[in-house]
Amino acid sequence: MYTQRIELRGHIIDSHILPRVLDTIIDYNGDFNIQKFTIGRTKTDPSFALIEVRAAREGELNNILKMLQALGATIVTDAAVLLEPAPGDGAFPPNFYATTNLETFIHHGGRWLEVDNMEMDCGIVFTPDEGQARCVPMAQVQAGELVVVGHEGVKVLPRQRARRKEFFSFMDSAVSSERPKGLMIEQIAGLMKTLKGKGKKVLLVGGPAIIHTGAGKYLSRIIEGGFIDYLFAGNALATHDIEAALWGTSLGIDLATGEVTPGGHAHHLRAINTIRLAGGIRPAIKKGILTRGVMYSCVVHDVDFLLAGSIRDDGPLPEVVTDVLVAQEEMRRRLQDVELVLMLGTMLHSIATGNLLPATVRTVCVDINPAVVTKLADRGSFQALGLVSDVEWFLRELAHQLSSHAGVGEVTIEKEEA
Amino acid sequence: MYTQRIELRGHIIDSHILPRVLDTIIDYNGDFNIQKFTIGRTKTDPSFALIEVRAAREGELNNILKMLQALGATIVTDAAVLLEPAPGDGAFPPNFYATTNLETFIHHGGRWLEVDNMEMDCGIVFTPDEGQARCVPMAQVQAGELVVVGHEGVKVLPRQRARRKEFFSFMDSAVSSERPKGLMIEQIAGLMKTLKGKGKKVLLVGGPAIIHTGAGKYLSRIIEGGFIDYLFAGNALATHDIEAALWGTSLGIDLATGEVTPGGHAHHLRAINTIRLAGGIRPAIKKGILTRGVMYSCVVHDVDFLLAGSIRDDGPLPEVVTDVLVAQEEMRRRLQDVELVLMLGTMLHSIATGNLLPATVRTVCVDINPAVVTKLADRGSFQALGLVSDVEWFLRELAHQLSSHAGVGEVTIEKEEA
Amino acid sequence: MYTQRIELRGHIIDSHILPRVLDTIIDYNGDFNIQKFTIGRTKTDPSFALIEVRAAREGELNNILKMLQALGATIVTDAAVLLEPAPGDGAFPPNFYATTNLETFIHHGGRWLEVDNMEMDCGIVFTPDEGQARCVPMAQVQAGELVVVGHEGVKVLPRQRARRKEFFSFMDSAVSSERPKGLMIEQIAGLMKTLKGKGKKVLLVGGPAIIHTGAGKYLSRIIEGGFIDYLFAGNALATHDIEAALWGTSLGIDLATGEVTPGGHAHHLRAINTIRLAGGIRPAIKKGILTRGVMYSCVVHDVDFLLAGSIRDDGPLPEVVTDVLVAQEEMRRRLQDVELVLMLGTMLHSIATGNLLPATVRTVCVDINPAVVTKLADRGSFQALGLVSDVEWFLRELAHQLSSHAGVGEVTIEKEEA
Amino acid sequence: MYTQRIELRGHIIDSHILPRVLDTIIDYNGDFNIQKFTIGRTKTDPSFALIEVRAAREGELNNILKMLQALGATIVTDAAVLLEPAPGDGAFPPNFYATTNLETFIHHGGRWLEVDNMEMDCGIVFTPDEGQARCVPMAQVQAGELVVVGHEGVKVLPRQRARRKEFFSFMDSAVSSERPKGLMIEQIAGLMKTLKGKGKKVLLVGGPAIIHTGAGKYLSRIIEGGFIDYLFAGNALATHDIEAALWGTSLGIDLATGEVTPGGHAHHLRAINTIRLAGGIRPAIKKGILTRGVMYSCVVHDVDFLLAGSIRDDGPLPEVVTDVLVAQEEMRRRLQDVELVLMLGTMLHSIATGNLLPATVRTVCVDINPAVVTKLADRGSFQALGLVSDVEWFLRELAHQLSSHAGVGEVTIEKEEA
Repeated sequence: MYTQRIELRGHIIDSHILPRVLDTIIDYNGDFNIQKFTIGRTKTDPSFALIEVRAAREGELNNILKMLQALGATIVTDAAVLLEPAPGDGAFPPNFYATTNLETFIHHGGRWLEVDNMEMDCGIVFTPDEGQARCVPMAQVQAGELVVVGHEGVKVLPRQRARRKEFFSFMDSAVSSERPKGLMIEQIAGLMKTLKGKGKKVLLVGGPAIIHTGAGKYLSRIIEGGFIDYLFAGNALATHDIEAALWGTSLGIDLATGEVTPGGHAHHLRAINTIRLAGGIRPAIKKGILTRGVMYSCVVHDVDFLLAGSIRDDGPLPEVVTDVLVAQEEMRRRLQDVELVLMLGTMLHSIATGNLLPATVRTVCVDINPAVVTKLADRGSFQALGLVSDVEWFLRELAHQLSSHAGVGEVTIEKEEA
Repeated sequence: MYTQRIELRGHIIDSHILPRVLDTIIDYNGDFNIQKFTIGRTKTDPSFALIEVRAAREGELNNILKMLQALGATIVTDAAVLLEPAPGDGAFPPNFYATTNLETFIHHGGRWLEVDNMEMDCGIVFTPDEGQARCVPMAQVQAGELVVVGHEGVKVLPRQRARRKEFFSFMDSAVSSERPKGLMIEQIAGLMKTLKGKGKKVLLVGGPAIIHTGAGKYLSRIIEGGFIDYLFAGNALATHDIEAALWGTSLGIDLATGEVTPGGHAHHLRAINTIRLAGGIRPAIKKGILTRGVMYSCVVHDVDFLLAGSIRDDGPLPEVVTDVLVAQEEMRRRLQDVELVLMLGTMLHSIATGNLLPATVRTVCVDINPAVVTKLADRGSFQALGLVSDVEWFLRELAHQLSSHAGVGEVTIEKEEA
Repeated sequence: MYTQRIELRGHIIDSHILPRVLDTIIDYNGDFNIQKFTIGRTKTDPSFALIEVRAAREGELNNILKMLQALGATIVTDAAVLLEPAPGDGAFPPNFYATTNLETFIHHGGRWLEVDNMEMDCGIVFTPDEGQARCVPMAQVQAGELVVVGHEGVKVLPRQRARRKEFFSFMDSAVSSERPKGLMIEQIAGLMKTLKGKGKKVLLVGGPAIIHTGAGKYLSRIIEGGFIDYLFAGNALATHDIEAALWGTSLGIDLATGEVTPGGHAHHLRAINTIRLAGGIRPAIKKGILTRGVMYSCVVHDVDFLLAGSIRDDGPLPEVVTDVLVAQEEMRRRLQDVELVLMLGTMLHSIATGNLLPATVRTVCVDINPAVVTKLADRGSFQALGLVSDVEWFLRELAHQLSSHAGVGEVTIEKEEA
Repeated sequence: MYTQRIELRGHIIDSHILPRVLDTIIDYNGDFNIQKFTIGRTKTDPSFALIEVRAAREGELNNILKMLQALGATIVTDAAVLLEPAPGDGAFPPNFYATTNLETFIHHGGRWLEVDNMEMDCGIVFTPDEGQARCVPMAQVQAGELVVVGHEGVKVLPRQRARRKEFFSFMDSAVSSERPKGLMIEQIAGLMKTLKGKGKKVLLVGGPAIIHTGAGKYLSRIIEGGFIDYLFAGNALATHDIEAALWGTSLGIDLATGEVTPGGHAHHLRAINTIRLAGGIRPAIKKGILTRGVMYSCVVHDVDFLLAGSIRDDGPLPEVVTDVLVAQEEMRRRLQDVELVLMLGTMLHSIATGNLLPATVRTVCVDINPAVVTKLADRGSFQALGLVSDVEWFLRELAHQLSSHAGVGEVTIEKEEA
């Protein structure tokens, strides 16, 4: 029998971490012996468990340890993290440690060092001179940089359920459409007011359905209220927004009457062409060509917008970042200090953003297609609140709630307890 | 070659009837010769076509003629309709004519007689004494009654597209969620105001999502405004409405906070039990037990409600009609003079109602699941306007529009031209 | 402070019962003190916890205890269960205990008595003469029968996760369509072979999509192989099956060519009429009118079928049970000894069946609409394996696997450990 | 009154072109007078109509004419097409003619010149020296090139319904999942065999669900049979295919057992890293690192694959084209001679491909999500056959049909009659 001791600390029972650890051991044909176990007697005391994990073969034991580590178990060892130089630009050593989106530490030089810029599906690069560890996407690693390999000397802090409830936990099976959604919007509005008051950042990720459904005007109003700091979107949202600003249509549908406009199928192309002729969105605003709409509001109210390209794009608008790796970098740069992400009516941009977010950032995903909401939740974005609902009405109600002065009281924005 | 002449009259070109007739002939291996063709030169003139249909075999020709008849073609013949006695109670003669939901006439005694109570998937019973023809469901025919057989001497009026547009035609592919839906609700509200002014009847078919999402209060308000004449629902809507009235929860979720109520999973059972103990919904209102909610509003404002049973039902409430054939009869009785049907968040009751409606009745189907909306449209309810959207917000906005005095102008309620 | 001690026994950690108990206490503003805690050191030892629950008000404590009881906590008390006579036929006392679908015991006469016929959303009736407790639906209780009220003296066995994995647990988020489904069908086929070998019962609940997609022939083959004991369906499945048997069409679509058959829209009506004229499905088979199809296979191979009515039904066929309460009773009667339920392409019949099943019965739900699969899982049928997939191909592959002699080895059918 | 005469020629009745023309005139407040009308008396004779269109204002008339032109009406005029130089690189003149995906001609120098490389949402550039007109995406036009403006002198050939049916027309409402899909796959297989026999090109556009569901082996077999000429996919399909080839997992799920593999969540990253270290997919095959899977089959069997980047991508693989405009150009280049496109389980790549296809190319779209299939159909890809179904089983059955020698007879591949 191969054995290894692991430790668990914190709210390991009510956060379901201990049971998941035991499940995992059994599921992968291991065995365990709980050598020490202290349960927190009150709701503020942490618990502690020391568990001996056993498996018949070394490979099996290593597999189990890998899984437990991702759950937050610390391998009881004095071993330091292992480092190997990257064999080339844009490639890690074969046995590199692949990150989760949870808070992570490496054991180096006898102490635990927190890893910066956490993001899932990256590697960890350690810079000896600065004594710094940071998360690095594969394409950005450079030959010779020291990369963490194997799973020894790495510790992950599991996301623990706060004992004090907050609204993000009030819907467990968050995907059902049959809930009183008005309440949730109230709470989201309350959180946005609080975040604004504290100078925290909010990102909105949006798809063209916002414009097609006529909800652009509500989004503009929210932007004008100063509740949004960043906008991530694609060519489509910006194009149809400009189409609506110039001709009152979206994909050729008149937003004031719901009817098809003659020749309207080409309006979005003419919108793109107009902006290309003007030299871009900002020049078009300066020249007085573009005078309203979501993009206009962004420029006038200093919302830092990013338009990321896709192979579906017509045109595209000059501001669109057509190289997807460059676009990812631009997204990463803006995510550093975001506290809340609203994802509205776009699967591509929502998943792309979710991939780059640490687990601690709250996200709200609204889509009329339950498959999109489910897919986001499946990706490990476990601070996600999913609403299967109509983007038009979500924005309308949110704009209404945000403009009302009857406060909902302060909404707590403290982070989950570690 | 077997041949038969058919006639087409009316707006047969812009209603796409002529092309569909020619398509059908070709699709089923027939051939045709257009012997006479007069096109309406202006938009008010009807057109006329006399077409000789040919097929290689008699069976093929008969098949084609059956299809053309359903499209509105009249077989040029002096033949009277064929009648045969029903061979037993609840069964038609083997070769009975199966109805569509379009206006239908039979040729008897040298004249065309309109069939009453049109409904799809029934037979036609002719009563010689009264000279009356009427649509009869299979289960209701009685041994010896005269039933139309074959397809000779039967004429169906195709539903023709009105040249004057009305809002029901403004969305062709009506199922997309990416449209400005606010506009449609304005139009629906305008139509409901007009219908109310003229004393026309409106039916609402609703599912429990109305209550789960907290939209019961909006529906109550619409009922109190006098805009609804009939409510079709199941045990679930009424039960959760009463649960909400008695304990403020729906399926145990507190509608004021969105949280799970301790012991709340049994609230709907206690609601049913309470009403069963009281002897029913009306007695419970009289005794002061039930004092608010959708069912309360129905009773107080004389909305004639029908609760139809299903095998999913708990309890059920005493008013639930547990025999489905009896429930169908109760539905039929109330549909006679309905001009508009709103179908909200229920597939079972919506399809059941759609099956009983003549083609001329306008229906609006709102569901967050596109599959439900598509399924209804597939069933041949072609006056249906489908909204893929959120029932909560639909009712909220509809209640708001209906209570606003700023009229949208009168909405035309004239029937399609025949 | 109001306090009450509760006990938890069994695999309370790896079954996540302890953490859920602690969560619940905290979520509803209570507090706890773990007075005794013994953890099973190996995977076969049970654990034990004695917990003092505290709340500021008596009502709050009672609410918490209700929730804990549903999770499997036993209130440490010598109190016997409370019984009150039913105040009338078809109604329980106001404070009746509402059942879950878990194994349940009542404390009476100093001993724990198991409740028979467990089913969710019922009451418990105790018959002193026979010393028997049984689950009774509301509509069936008779005035004066002794009904359990309150929550004292009631114990619920939580469903515990088996330490030995079986295939029903291998997909946690069971609703995704992006999994290798072929494997699951192999496993289901293996289980069905084993169940057949041991004489255990299998129920298939099916919708008309089975026939529309041309999969009726695969279902017939499975029935002929002796793998199905009961069939629950509605009028539609049987009608279209008979339509297909008589004319080769389903809803008028030719199953051999996929094309619309002239006059075929009336075929299902003619099918119903034919069977009504013959006096029913069995007489039609005896008279040689019906010679193939799913219903034919059921009759010939002694599958006990139940056709439950709905308000959508045309006709219906003579065998359809049109009263939904009678249909529920017929369903209950057949569910007593069922070990596996396959639910294919029907939401109405699947939910109705799920409502009547004890939690220990395995169910497999296959539907192309994720909403149906999710809805079933949401209803507390937690032994459910959901496949978002195509009913046609599921049945085809299942028929293939069942007819193959290359066994998959015996599949364990032992129940979860208690 | 402003008036203009238009001409319609061809199968204008059974292709529903005449009625759509008349509808459009009326819908946009115009009027018409049919001055000459000859109907084809038999199914091979073309028809002809000369119609005077009238409107109260010049702008209205122009709007109507724009719409009619898109439907295939020719404006009766001797006017030549209008040309203006592009005002800058990557921008058209403001009033540029925006293309449809139908066959298009311009009237220049007294004759009708066909436009090459038809694609929707582009402009038309005329090169006087070569006497050539071609479709040009906005981003590619160069300053000074002559671009068609306005709508005069442009003729569009409407897509006409073939009188001889072929399987692409056999499902009108092509999105329903309740059809006998086995038949369709037979027909698709037959068409693929015929196309292969004639040396015509087939493109497969695929998403990662092909790999996740374990269907990669069927796709490999189809590729090995020589039935696919091009593959369009993203980083995800190739990555998970390589993950499956190297470790037998897809997204960490073991494809042989359906279970989660320890540490498997990082397998796709290791797959990408392995290929990056090797220098790409082709080098990895040469070095013997990659020895099976879809990408392997593509390389070995000379399928020209294109991996287009998206902002969701991890890595990505070296072959991924990260600039979306470059990727579009690569797609366009390969589409020139494609006769059939299979779109399987990807919305992004399917819509991107659909945008670039002329209307005459047959497409088959298979997805388990009806929203994807509907969305593709909504985009004007009207030769699309949509199957709401399971990609795994579609490919499995298609591979089986393609390898069977029992031919289905030759499937006609002749183009629609003009």
